[in-house]
Amino acid sequence: MVKLAPSILSADFSKLGEEVRDVEKAGADYIHIDVMDGHFVPNITMGPIVVGAVRPVTTLPLDVHLMVEEPDRFIESFAKAGADILSVHVEATKHLHRTIQLIKSYGVKAGVVLNPHTPVDAVKQVLQDLDLVLVMTVNPGFGGQSFIESTLPKIKELHRMKEINGFSYEIEVDGGVNDQTARQCVEAGANVLVAGSAIFDKTDRAAAIKLIRSNS
Amino acid sequence: MVKLAPSILSADFSKLGEEVRDVEKAGADYIHIDVMDGHFVPNITMGPIVVGAVRPVTTLPLDVHLMVEEPDRFIESFAKAGADILSVHVEATKHLHRTIQLIKSYGVKAGVVLNPHTPVDAVKQVLQDLDLVLVMTVNPGFGGQSFIESTLPKIKELHRMKEINGFSYEIEVDGGVNDQTARQCVEAGANVLVAGSAIFDKTDRAAAIKLIRSNS
Amino acid sequence: MVKLAPSILSADFSKLGEEVRDVEKAGADYIHIDVMDGHFVPNITMGPIVVGAVRPVTTLPLDVHLMVEEPDRFIESFAKAGADILSVHVEATKHLHRTIQLIKSYGVKAGVVLNPHTPVDAVKQVLQDLDLVLVMTVNPGFGGQSFIESTLPKIKELHRMKEINGFSYEIEVDGGVNDQTARQCVEAGANVLVAGSAIFDKTDRAAAIKLIRSNS
Amino acid sequence: MVKLAPSILSADFSKLGEEVRDVEKAGADYIHIDVMDGHFVPNITMGPIVVGAVRPVTTLPLDVHLMVEEPDRFIESFAKAGADILSVHVEATKHLHRTIQLIKSYGVKAGVVLNPHTPVDAVKQVLQDLDLVLVMTVNPGFGGQSFIESTLPKIKELHRMKEINGFSYEIEVDGGVNDQTARQCVEAGANVLVAGSAIFDKTDRAAAIKLIRSNS
Amino acid sequence: MVKLAPSILSADFSKLGEEVRDVEKAGADYIHIDVMDGHFVPNITMGPIVVGAVRPVTTLPLDVHLMVEEPDRFIESFAKAGADILSVHVEATKHLHRTIQLIKSYGVKAGVVLNPHTPVDAVKQVLQDLDLVLVMTVNPGFGGQSFIESTLPKIKELHRMKEINGFSYEIEVDGGVNDQTARQCVEAGANVLVAGSAIFDKTDRAAAIKLIRSNS
Amino acid sequence: MVKLAPSILSADFSKLGEEVRDVEKAGADYIHIDVMDGHFVPNITMGPIVVGAVRPVTTLPLDVHLMVEEPDRFIESFAKAGADILSVHVEATKHLHRTIQLIKSYGVKAGVVLNPHTPVDAVKQVLQDLDLVLVMTVNPGFGGQSFIESTLPKIKELHRMKEINGFSYEIEVDGGVNDQTARQCVEAGANVLVAGSAIFDKTDRAAAIKLIRSNS
Repeated sequence: MVKLAPSILSADFSKLGEEVRDVEKAGADYIHIDVMDGHFVPNITMGPIVVGAVRPVTTLPLDVHLMVEEPDRFIESFAKAGADILSVHVEATKHLHRTIQLIKSYGVKAGVVLNPHTPVDAVKQVLQDLDLVLVMTVNPGFGGQSFIESTLPKIKELHRMKEINGFSYEIEVDGGVNDQTARQCVEAGANVLVAGSAIFDKTDRAAAIKLIRSNS
Repeated sequence: MVKLAPSILSADFSKLGEEVRDVEKAGADYIHIDVMDGHFVPNITMGPIVVGAVRPVTTLPLDVHLMVEEPDRFIESFAKAGADILSVHVEATKHLHRTIQLIKSYGVKAGVVLNPHTPVDAVKQVLQDLDLVLVMTVNPGFGGQSFIESTLPKIKELHRMKEINGFSYEIEVDGGVNDQTARQCVEAGANVLVAGSAIFDKTDRAAAIKLIRSNS
Repeated sequence: MVKLAPSILSADFSKLGEEVRDVEKAGADYIHIDVMDGHFVPNITMGPIVVGAVRPVTTLPLDVHLMVEEPDRFIESFAKAGADILSVHVEATKHLHRTIQLIKSYGVKAGVVLNPHTPVDAVKQVLQDLDLVLVMTVNPGFGGQSFIESTLPKIKELHRMKEINGFSYEIEVDGGVNDQTARQCVEAGANVLVAGSAIFDKTDRAAAIKLIRSNS
Repeated sequence: MVKLAPSILSADFSKLGEEVRDVEKAGADYIHIDVMDGHFVPNITMGPIVVGAVRPVTTLPLDVHLMVEEPDRFIESFAKAGADILSVHVEATKHLHRTIQLIKSYGVKAGVVLNPHTPVDAVKQVLQDLDLVLVMTVNPGFGGQSFIESTLPKIKELHRMKEINGFSYEIEVDGGVNDQTARQCVEAGANVLVAGSAIFDKTDRAAAIKLIRSNS
Repeated sequence: MVKLAPSILSADFSKLGEEVRDVEKAGADYIHIDVMDGHFVPNITMGPIVVGAVRPVTTLPLDVHLMVEEPDRFIESFAKAGADILSVHVEATKHLHRTIQLIKSYGVKAGVVLNPHTPVDAVKQVLQDLDLVLVMTVNPGFGGQSFIESTLPKIKELHRMKEINGFSYEIEVDGGVNDQTARQCVEAGANVLVAGSAIFDKTDRAAAIKLIRSNS
Repeated sequence: MVKLAPSILSADFSKLGEEVRDVEKAGADYIHIDVMDGHFVPNITMGPIVVGAVRPVTTLPLDVHLMVEEPDRFIESFAKAGADILSVHVEATKHLHRTIQLIKSYGVKAGVVLNPHTPVDAVKQVLQDLDLVLVMTVNPGFGGQSFIESTLPKIKELHRMKEINGFSYEIEVDGGVNDQTARQCVEAGANVLVAGSAIFDKTDRAAAIKLIRSNS
């Protein structure tokens, strides 16, 4: 069954613990944490302090998406703050293999993220080492975008390579996920869906999660 | 009377609204928000989303300290999120005068921050335009430091220049402020004290604030 | 029929209006404008002010080639100055899909440029969104180079992908284009040729353009 | 008598030769050329190609203001293109003394530029080596600003240091110069005034130049 | 027969000449020189001065591996210091074709280096211009790593492309090369092996070289 | 008596141990090690590996001059390699006070370096924390320069401030030091002289050192 990863970027930050507990109770599988540094993307959001605050509140895996330049510098602090999965952009590091090993050295699962224009080829040398591949279905860090359909073939390609080679990574999608696009992504091979306002903006989060799940 | 600006970097981020309301009730004058981008300083903390979450919770001025490179890129989003004071590092921008005007263009008060090694000379051309000068009494973004005494003469010099020229900036200090150092800073001319764990780590925040105030 | 895009980098900048009118009369299809920022390439050439000066002088499309780092920062000013086509280097932006959308949001045609060593794979995810692909047949921003033959297979590959998928981008080549290489490029699938001194250095520009056209 | 340096940033770039000849005839002393790289300042304007186009058109000194990062990389090309004065920002180079020597090694006069917030102290170690100090009276590269009065004491200080030490640099001001501010600058010690639209936007440039001169 | 390239990073730098003469006598084919700039990789090692010191000591080719950002800036000084082969990282330059031509313009052989995660596709447009392709089998500039097996298919692919197209580059591997991995690399198609401590840490370097050779 | 610090940049790198022992025997006081990263200055020289190789060879203090950007990243490795003094450029770090504390945390003496154009004011806030101030009397990292006389007043100012305040830093000069300039520097207040070719290029290094000493 598809996993749901609500992004706390859409939560009410004045009561983050309550929000996280609420989506956990509502059936979320992961807590998705969007870290932006204002350099890789044009916005600053949150850092290890937020991971550390969410950690004792939930038993769900903390799925941290690092939209930061030179992520190696931050792996240790996010790992120590309690991240379960740390995903880095292939566009943000010149030593991707090393970054993945560094993440794993802390006992944390390692993911790689692909911007909408980035082909799967860019990561094919490290697929065997990955626990997760995150396919951006919008451009990260910019507001007001809708689901980019041309990313669906990438999801399919990742799924195919996983099947053929027996790789074990999960395939996560992030951006513009709603009832309709969720189905497309899952059909293409995704098994984790990030959703922000589609969950947190609803009063009944359980219903919101159920709706996405039932459609996908 | 000296103003107290509790830094929410030491608050419990799982219940930020409650924490902020608590220090407001306890007598805080400003809510101090430490923004780090992982480039100007080696840590990432929080961004406009946190300012926006704190804004409706309190009537206190939000005093935002930008430890970020090229701060111009973020002024608009912090202003729109509800910042009342935006302070930028003189070491982080090559067009400081412009940055100050940009902040003011949004109706926000403008501050400049001096790292421990930076002399007052570096900002003397813009003192007349400022609402606040923040003197770092530890190095920003690094943990486990104690109050740097050699910054006291800078506070005195800023106070003297303010008196002589009739400037209107407040003088704020940040780092290692406790009962003893608070007095030194206030005697040197500071009128706003940032304090983190010295307030948020105490169960009785009103007592903590009163203690610092009474000693300064 | 192949289109000719004279690059004003080879025009007499003391009488740019006259030069542009002259090549328009001589049969040019586009006016090619080479923008260099001294960072992506080791030379600085011209900016929006030149686009704005050429705009009222001609009815030809202004075909602007941005050899600049982080082109997003300049899209608006070039669009407002009157650019009809804005092309950015895939090597210069980490959010290429976003950059293309940004260009289009101003009603401007979007192009992507490939350095000689960059494979077509690097842009395959965005080909469907493009109005133009510019294949550099010399290294941009460096003088005294001749046509790099190993770029011809890239032109062929772009042409093939366009045919197969029904994409609508034009294929433009830039660098070392002369009577002989023009034919090679057109045979490979290019339909727009940039030429600088081969046109502007000739007294009879109409003859120069006709010559290239007849050979290609 | 005060010198006038019309900035061609306000000229009609479609007929630059004619514009330059016109202000020369109208009594200009220098031709001021504003080079921006889109990195030191958020705009790109023009490079050596424009200097080279203006060079044969006039006998006036070409006074080139480099608003670029790491200017050393461009000194040779501007010198060879025909610059008579090359001025660099103290904020843009970490080896200012070296940059000045490099400029002089090409037989070109060397200037240093101070942003509005930069104190004179920043250049005091190199004043003896300079042919020109350019005091920015607006923030370079940003539009729609008016003359910053707080820069007048810097002009005075530079004038005083020149008198006391027998230094030989000219003192130039750039930004918001009009009839009123011209007088203030000259009284403070400036002897070269940059003016853009105040000259180029007028039909009678001779009258415009005469007016500024008579008021200063 | 496979070539051995002892890396002087593992030599005793207090008697570098002696060390180099010793491995030459022991049967080395190349002297491998690892240049790190502390930016492309997190370590600083040596520069042209070391190449210049080793040059008169040996007749072996000096095989210089540049782990530096923007290598173009250093090509001339390494060439003049006596490098025979200069290899640059595809991840470190945006104008790789140009960099290769620059190296060759000094009469030096040109190589390209691939980080462990970088696919062969990234360099396929320039393979025909290369004298050497260096496949990193550990992440460059980080200590304590072992041979990364997932790089073997890249070696095979490079070998295959060389055979099919008649290219002339050598295939070199660097990192974790020992008796066992040497054989794997050579079987995959490598013909030059870099080895550091596996040679320099042994008293009998001739035996060490012979051992690696006999196993590969 | 003035101390002599021969810079091994002028030594024969093929027999560094012998060279260092030779100048130690000849009366040197410090071994000066010039580290360049190709970014702060346009040359790459040597790193911790060289410090580590020199360490067991001599009992003289290793006086390491870091001409590198963001020196904090390298402090630990140079300290562990055996540096006794680590000096960083004020122009290369935005957190100078922090850098100094970091150096001291390894039990290493901390120095600060001033480029020729940098005024003493830039470091006045940290003078009390320093073990050494290095005044560059040429521009670091560029060849073929002669002693810059305008740096002498800086030496005097540093000496005066040391006397008045009871500070304990040594004053070192580096660049163009010969018989004549040595005397000028010592008279101005310097007590450590760096010399390169003036010592290493001479057959009789003891005589060379004695000559400089007797003249200063």
